[in-house]
Amino acid sequence: MTLALTAQEVMDYMAAEFPQVKDDFAIDALSEDAITLRLLVAERHLRPGGTVSGPSMFALADCAVYAMVLARVGRKALAVTISCSMDFMRKPAAGVDVISKCRLLKLGRALAVGDMLLYSEGDERPVARASMTYSIPPK
Amino acid sequence: MTLALTAQEVMDYMAAEFPQVKDDFAIDALSEDAITLRLLVAERHLRPGGTVSGPSMFALADCAVYAMVLARVGRKALAVTISCSMDFMRKPAAGVDVISKCRLLKLGRALAVGDMLLYSEGDERPVARASMTYSIPPK
Amino acid sequence: MTLALTAQEVMDYMAAEFPQVKDDFAIDALSEDAITLRLLVAERHLRPGGTVSGPSMFALADCAVYAMVLARVGRKALAVTISCSMDFMRKPAAGVDVISKCRLLKLGRALAVGDMLLYSEGDERPVARASMTYSIPPK
Amino acid sequence: MTLALTAQEVMDYMAAEFPQVKDDFAIDALSEDAITLRLLVAERHLRPGGTVSGPSMFALADCAVYAMVLARVGRKALAVTISCSMDFMRKPAAGVDVISKCRLLKLGRALAVGDMLLYSEGDERPVARASMTYSIPPK
Repeated sequence: MTLALTAQEVMDYMAAEFPQVKDDFAIDALSEDAITLRLLVAERHLRPGGTVSGPSMFALADCAVYAMVLARVGRKALAVTISCSMDFMRKPAAGVDVISKCRLLKLGRALAVGDMLLYSEGDERPVARASMTYSIPPK
Repeated sequence: MTLALTAQEVMDYMAAEFPQVKDDFAIDALSEDAITLRLLVAERHLRPGGTVSGPSMFALADCAVYAMVLARVGRKALAVTISCSMDFMRKPAAGVDVISKCRLLKLGRALAVGDMLLYSEGDERPVARASMTYSIPPK
Repeated sequence: MTLALTAQEVMDYMAAEFPQVKDDFAIDALSEDAITLRLLVAERHLRPGGTVSGPSMFALADCAVYAMVLARVGRKALAVTISCSMDFMRKPAAGVDVISKCRLLKLGRALAVGDMLLYSEGDERPVARASMTYSIPPK
Repeated sequence: MTLALTAQEVMDYMAAEFPQVKDDFAIDALSEDAITLRLLVAERHLRPGGTVSGPSMFALADCAVYAMVLARVGRKALAVTISCSMDFMRKPAAGVDVISKCRLLKLGRALAVGDMLLYSEGDERPVARASMTYSIPPK
């Protein structure tokens, strides 16, 4: 197992393909079977009271597994999300980034599965848990 | 069973409490155990190619169950999402709204469960399936 | 769309392939996109107090989607479960069958998705909700 | 945080309350926020080809979180499963136990959440992933 793309190459590719979200995320760490992805929390991600919205956490989880698959499979990847499950356990802290510690559990020919815990930066108790399955269509 | 709030009252309450999303949704129909909620698709909900983003569909699903609980329990509801699962089955059509046909499966003292199919307007094949569990904390 | 197998043919095939479970289930109804599958509740499916166990409800849900895919694709199907989500909403009644009303939401070349509500016979309030995704490997 | 019950006390309690499953499981390890639970694979857990059945893996996952909650909350716990999600990633090996490495992600007053990876003994690649939410009713 080796990485097809570096963290920088993954970010560059995503910025080109998904310009809407290019300012939302940063890769803190990337290895062959794990990624730490950061949601750069801004006003648009918040709900009243300053808490990070559910859709923003979904986006972080979805993007983490996508970036992980991309890093392994390369730019030819046309992976699409087919299922997800999430558990929301604590209210995210106001005013800090949310960090997803994601591991790649399976990368098959047709399917990839990743799961993760999401943390408010500076707190070791997870705010949410997510798992995502991606379909990797044949080329 | 009766509704505590009308569709208009639900929308007014959500617009006041969640101003970020007030232009995103409209209630097409509301009954005692079902709601049809529409995502008013705009540029900010799209991915390249015109397809509606996963986080936007998550937001629609989450909001549908929240609105349903609100309509039944009234403004005192402090419901919070505790878990969700979604299956993404087809690519949403470009340029049309996404419509969630949601049913309330359980409304207990502490927990509410709803599920739904999501459709691109004008197509009878569902683009996604979602279920959401809300916790209703004691007052 | 037509059915590749009748209800009787589905049951015969499952009895031959999965002899362990052949006395557990009966098909009440089968159409091109829906199946009603009955768990013939026996002592082995129960928990103390007479309630039907979680694993038995999982088995019913899993089997419903499998039978539906089999009915559509035929005996050549080698479908395997890749993900499931369930919500348990009420305690099943003691001493009665559990009935799964399952609909096929997607049947693609590589993936099938079904969801269902589970009922204790004679009660119109669902005891559980389930969704299942099957992978259909290429022959 | 301390444990209310030892591993032996948890097993004794479960054997008394759920005699149907008392020969199915063994606790390999227990700490304040994690449990390793073993499915003692026997003929009744198998599918043709010797693989462990889905319902048996569901039972293992469900039991792991239940045992973890019991160990923390004590015999007064009346926890009931309210939701689960599972991803099945690889076929379990024939003829070996399945081991669940479960961590307790949240133990609140009303809700507990645990997740886990399931392994065929002797293989470091997970066969499945599961998460379970339990409701802990007020006494």
